Amino acid sequence: MTSTPYETRTLRVALLGHGAVGSEVARLLIRDADELAQRVGARLELVGVAVSRARADRETPFDPALLTTDAMGLVTRGDIDVVIELIGGIEPARSLVLAALESGASVVTGNKALLAEDGATLFAAAEKAGRDLYYEAAVAGAIPIVRPLRESLAGDHVRRVLGIVNGTTNFILDAMTTTGQGFDEALAEAQRLGFAEADPTADVEGFDAASKAAILASLAFHTRVTIDDVHREGITGVTAEHIRSADDMGCVVKLLAICDQSEDGVSVAARVHPVMIPKDHPLASVRGAYNAVFVESESAGQLMFYGPGAGGAPTASAVLGDLLSVARNRLLEVSGPAERTHARREVLGIGDARTRYHIALDVDDKAGVLSSVALAFAENEVSISAVRQEGHGDDAQLVVITHTATDAALSHTVRQLRDLPMVRDVSSVMRVEGEGL
Amino acid sequence: MTSTPYETRTLRVALLGHGAVGSEVARLLIRDADELAQRVGARLELVGVAVSRARADRETPFDPALLTTDAMGLVTRGDIDVVIELIGGIEPARSLVLAALESGASVVTGNKALLAEDGATLFAAAEKAGRDLYYEAAVAGAIPIVRPLRESLAGDHVRRVLGIVNGTTNFILDAMTTTGQGFDEALAEAQRLGFAEADPTADVEGFDAASKAAILASLAFHTRVTIDDVHREGITGVTAEHIRSADDMGCVVKLLAICDQSEDGVSVAARVHPVMIPKDHPLASVRGAYNAVFVESESAGQLMFYGPGAGGAPTASAVLGDLLSVARNRLLEVSGPAERTHARREVLGIGDARTRYHIALDVDDKAGVLSSVALAFAENEVSISAVRQEGHGDDAQLVVITHTATDAALSHTVRQLRDLPMVRDVSSVMRVEGEGL
Repeated sequence: MTSTPYETRTLRVALLGHGAVGSEVARLLIRDADELAQRVGARLELVGVAVSRARADRETPFDPALLTTDAMGLVTRGDIDVVIELIGGIEPARSLVLAALESGASVVTGNKALLAEDGATLFAAAEKAGRDLYYEAAVAGAIPIVRPLRESLAGDHVRRVLGIVNGTTNFILDAMTTTGQGFDEALAEAQRLGFAEADPTADVEGFDAASKAAILASLAFHTRVTIDDVHREGITGVTAEHIRSADDMGCVVKLLAICDQSEDGVSVAARVHPVMIPKDHPLASVRGAYNAVFVESESAGQLMFYGPGAGGAPTASAVLGDLLSVARNRLLEVSGPAERTHARREVLGIGDARTRYHIALDVDDKAGVLSSVALAFAENEVSISAVRQEGHGDDAQLVVITHTATDAALSHTVRQLRDLPMVRDVSSVMRVEGEGL
Repeated sequence: MTSTPYETRTLRVALLGHGAVGSEVARLLIRDADELAQRVGARLELVGVAVSRARADRETPFDPALLTTDAMGLVTRGDIDVVIELIGGIEPARSLVLAALESGASVVTGNKALLAEDGATLFAAAEKAGRDLYYEAAVAGAIPIVRPLRESLAGDHVRRVLGIVNGTTNFILDAMTTTGQGFDEALAEAQRLGFAEADPTADVEGFDAASKAAILASLAFHTRVTIDDVHREGITGVTAEHIRSADDMGCVVKLLAICDQSEDGVSVAARVHPVMIPKDHPLASVRGAYNAVFVESESAGQLMFYGPGAGGAPTASAVLGDLLSVARNRLLEVSGPAERTHARREVLGIGDARTRYHIALDVDDKAGVLSSVALAFAENEVSISAVRQEGHGDDAQLVVITHTATDAALSHTVRQLRDLPMVRDVSSVMRVEGEGL
């Protein structure tokens, strides 16, 4: 590349957002300008940084005159080669990305919510404009997962994606596991340490993970999955008792994004919920705020990708990797691989999901309880793998672990169990991943 | 992509080699022809398969008339768009790859030995021809690692790559750890199960891992590292005693490829040798014939890539991913990111490598031994982290674990220890990764 006269070519870059990730991207663009120019074959010139509020005291590694509150004016000024969108949320991000593409810029974004809600509109706009829309930073921070799914595994058939894709919830569950804390305590600790936001809803209720599940399922299965297709349960209902029960089974509790394709390839499903997984599963040892994505494909078998799932610097690494690819494509006047949703597979609801279950029942401590409970499972064709009684008298509890069953059959079983006179309460139902427990 | 009239375009593919990987690639090219055409935007037509010996009884999913023993004739016939080289070894593979590039074909290869020995010649030929040379299958089988290093992390600065990149040795070490077997027994078992070849030299002596270390270091640090630059020690000297000593320290023994860049970025080093690593290190739990590559970079932090490191189907997945990228580039009349060795960093030898050590000494069981031994370390400025005496009388042994030191200082210490009258033997020296032991 040293023979390329890159000094004579320039690509103009506009940055939308100057928070933790945006400011780090700007800093690296300026610090590493020569090196990046050598890698791309052209200089990357930061020509504008859109912020929501002008602040006279803002320290920037670039000329403060580049700051603007007119993001739309910036992306539509007509000479921008690449727009980096790091605002997040649906609007004004969507309008800005669409305007950028229409104005002839390629786009790099980390906006999972927007892609999961309305990816179709964005990808169609990119294809129409003949420009790139890259989004490695939208899923699992610095971990290269979008590019491996889109390019490395393009000749393979992905069957399943399991991911720990939200660092906040993984941190909280990990703290609960390590310290025996309850959810509220562990959340407070995470907030104190900066691993959870003041309003933790998007994380702890699973919205963030559900967006990523939609993006991963779309990519992996070449079909359109939106956040509305993703069954979502957060971790606010996970108790110290769940963690202990999991431990009794040699498991830990993780919030997983699970994307499945049916064996015949006709349908897919995506869901986010707490799961008990065996401690020897590769995902079980993912600690703290780390993320990991586990991929099962026909030829490659089982792959796992692991790394920091958030943070300014890691996310900036993903953004810059995309920026270099997109910039190189601009120079070559080509665009990267388009989104492929040709497969048009049916998206199934949670009722059709097949998994195993851990169910805890508060029961009367008397003869015949087990047979009545077992009958309720049998009548719904949910096969029992193990049963254990815990406690006695008023504290008697039955723990049932099932073989694989559909969520619909399990839900029906639980309703039937609640109606049994000797069952005082179905105190917990949690899904279980992994065979051989 | 559905609007692309791909039915009307064809790219001609020649396959060199029809072993475990080659036959799987051919099978998938034919079985998935329509799907691949849709993904590429052109049909991929297999126009020839070079084999070393014609065999009348060979079963092929393609017209047997495509088989030829004239590989050179196939790659130079002038109408080939992509050559997939799966012969392995240096010659005739090198001549064939060079002839293919000169004849205007792009090349996909899994040939780690060739790339590690003479990558410079191949990449120069590819650049001169304006064609692609892709090699995801050359390192860690199905695990996407070449593309993430070359593209996803292109805007980051990789500091270190640690990898379990040879499945055979990992299987053997894992078996030794699990069963307490010695090396010979575990090797025989691996051979019986098909995880080691009849002549296991390339694997157990670390040649295969050293090739991969050279490729990873070149990619990660943007400089030229060849197999001759890689310090190499295999696992034939690893004993059941080493495994037990490691276990005593909360470690396991792994054969690692270790690629380091100095903090100032001026120099790099690559080495392959057995290492004790703590059981809670992500690489420690990589079992059996699996591979994993651990990457540390400035912005992204710590990433890990995990999956099957060999085998026909997994390696075919990597080959097909490359084939689709290369084919797409041919259609667009561009080439992918070139190899970048602009950094021209100095490659250091093993003497400069800095790591920790586990040293076992057979010593006389008498007063003053420890002070003499400790003095030998001190005189070479190798700081001791822990010392433990084991056994008594004629079985007395000292185990010393050091802080980080250079290999040169350690070697000098060991020579000095051997000269001490009360040291009967330095029975083992093994490097240790990870702090806090």
